[in-house]
Amino acid sequence: MSVTAAAGFRAAGVAAGLKPSGKPDVALVVNDGPQHAAAAVFTSNRCKANPVLWSERTIADGQLSAVVLNSGGANCYNGPEGFQTTHASAELVAELTGGQAFDVAVCSTGLIGQPLDRPLLEAGIRAAHTELSPDGGPAAATAIMTTDTVRKEALVTSADGWVVGGMAKGAGMLAPALATMLVVVTTDAVADAATLDQALRAATRTTFDRLDTDGCMSTNDTVALLASGASGVQPTLDQLTAAVSAVCADLAEQLWHDAEGAHHDIAIEIAGAASEADAVEVARAVARSNLFKAAIFGNDPNWGRVLAAVGTTQAAFEPEKIDITMNGVKVCVAGGTQFGAPSTEVDLSGRDVHVLVELNAGPATATVLTSDLTHDYVHENSAYST
Amino acid sequence: MSVTAAAGFRAAGVAAGLKPSGKPDVALVVNDGPQHAAAAVFTSNRCKANPVLWSERTIADGQLSAVVLNSGGANCYNGPEGFQTTHASAELVAELTGGQAFDVAVCSTGLIGQPLDRPLLEAGIRAAHTELSPDGGPAAATAIMTTDTVRKEALVTSADGWVVGGMAKGAGMLAPALATMLVVVTTDAVADAATLDQALRAATRTTFDRLDTDGCMSTNDTVALLASGASGVQPTLDQLTAAVSAVCADLAEQLWHDAEGAHHDIAIEIAGAASEADAVEVARAVARSNLFKAAIFGNDPNWGRVLAAVGTTQAAFEPEKIDITMNGVKVCVAGGTQFGAPSTEVDLSGRDVHVLVELNAGPATATVLTSDLTHDYVHENSAYST
Repeated sequence: MSVTAAAGFRAAGVAAGLKPSGKPDVALVVNDGPQHAAAAVFTSNRCKANPVLWSERTIADGQLSAVVLNSGGANCYNGPEGFQTTHASAELVAELTGGQAFDVAVCSTGLIGQPLDRPLLEAGIRAAHTELSPDGGPAAATAIMTTDTVRKEALVTSADGWVVGGMAKGAGMLAPALATMLVVVTTDAVADAATLDQALRAATRTTFDRLDTDGCMSTNDTVALLASGASGVQPTLDQLTAAVSAVCADLAEQLWHDAEGAHHDIAIEIAGAASEADAVEVARAVARSNLFKAAIFGNDPNWGRVLAAVGTTQAAFEPEKIDITMNGVKVCVAGGTQFGAPSTEVDLSGRDVHVLVELNAGPATATVLTSDLTHDYVHENSAYST
Repeated sequence: MSVTAAAGFRAAGVAAGLKPSGKPDVALVVNDGPQHAAAAVFTSNRCKANPVLWSERTIADGQLSAVVLNSGGANCYNGPEGFQTTHASAELVAELTGGQAFDVAVCSTGLIGQPLDRPLLEAGIRAAHTELSPDGGPAAATAIMTTDTVRKEALVTSADGWVVGGMAKGAGMLAPALATMLVVVTTDAVADAATLDQALRAATRTTFDRLDTDGCMSTNDTVALLASGASGVQPTLDQLTAAVSAVCADLAEQLWHDAEGAHHDIAIEIAGAASEADAVEVARAVARSNLFKAAIFGNDPNWGRVLAAVGTTQAAFEPEKIDITMNGVKVCVAGGTQFGAPSTEVDLSGRDVHVLVELNAGPATATVLTSDLTHDYVHENSAYST
């Protein structure tokens, strides 16, 4: 039940006509309390969509009573009307739920630069409000899908009775910091806004921020965490961080497996780095190499392209000490100065690909999740708006 | 006649059997003097191929008597044998031409991580030596081609009798600093090594370094400039820089037009930047957006993806002041806060695409040349080694 698994939350998802397909496109998540503490993180893109500009302000006081989300339009770069539409939708949710507009976060996803139809959106919000239900999580998760092929939900239940649930959407423009990705995580734990903020930032840093399917950073990314306190249980920061991280990791994996056009799910693991930052930098460089990603699409264990990508970074390493293992076969030993196993021993016929790069420069590790570069990716992204 | 247009140079290109196709794959360029001043720039990739490791040392004294080049193998990450093969080929050229091995630069291009057949290479060098000719430029330019569909040559003739000629190869892994790109530029001007180095660095900074077809930096890039002094004319640094820059710009344009799988040649021009560095950073961010590149492939003037890429940079700008013009149509005004012309007015049916991003933050400009992301690019790079 995802976003409504935690006590104190109701949700709904309806078809408002924003999507030409007629599929569900407006979702509403309401926190019935008793508490309304919240935290959120947003895209680090400096060109932000209207709902991000709005939601950044609403979260400033650490309180959210509701999140309204729409697919079928990013509400981004579409003139002054766009921000007014975001504002009006928050006002409408506040009016319907008896709260304040400044406690309503707004999220939008879809095409950039197009007007968002305000009358359709407002009618959808009214319909969603009438359908709010403690069982509405799946409907809400469905209504935020764009090119997603499956809805994404996750749930962690603690031993002492509180839960963390979440929903996510995202299939393209997936890159840190954060992806075109809308995520709402809810909990019935008792926690103040500062604690929620710490837990959420710790969770996203090692989950969504390490998902980089196509190197493209979105204008709309939002991850919100709302706490109702309805369980009456107050976990420690570590307990809360662990649960939120588990839900975020689960959702990030679902986004990864559903990346646009991907034929292979590629985990780039860097070991032996001098620092975690170095490991992330190197992993990201490999994850963004179009030549490497195209080779994996062709089931070609072209480790030379991995090493070429590693060489573009500023991380601490000596080229002649790098080992590369692909799906368990060590194909590159000591930066190619010694012969490794033949590339023909690497089996890339399955969907899962694991690339281990051992820098042999220190103790730190990091893994970045990416996808191969395929004809389907090119097709989907050259034809998306036409 | 490209690399042999300048007096004092002979060249040859032969088929040595390094390429399975049997096409020409070994080229030799010899400077008969009377002078042998030279300069070179190399990939900034930290994982460098054996010929780059060798040539970086040979250029240290500012002298080159010859350059030997092969396609059919990058001689990169292939064990200690690889460096010895590079060394042996320089020794052989020195023996045949009566010079010193340390005055012979070596360049290789092809697959990374594969052994390079030394006996075949050495036989090719001997054959090339017997065919050295003042008319051998085109044959040499042909022998360095890999996935190039046409050979690349350029020539600038000065009013007072000295010339600058050049040849280049490169179609994929094209990104700064420098691309998988081998370039030899020759001149019969009189110039010392320090002057050549200044002229070459100034030229590459605004030409090859602004070519970024696929964001992938090579391990083998080399651009060498050799001067014979045979014209007896000593140009000023400015005159030499202008001529070398013109040849490099011409060759860079040829590389751009022949980029692997490209259907559109896209020039990203940034105007109104606070600094040239800002302009280059923004242009490169757009040039590396797979979503933008896929949209152009689909003839989709998706300016939202341009703005999303601009937003990932640290350049000075305010999002609501950015204007975007695509092929002459201003589709984004004031960062989308005002309505621009309809995207439907943009004609992307031709090969040439010009994207002008006006940051309105200062006087600086820069243009980066890139390509669209196409099915042919994916096909060529998923099937290249198989």
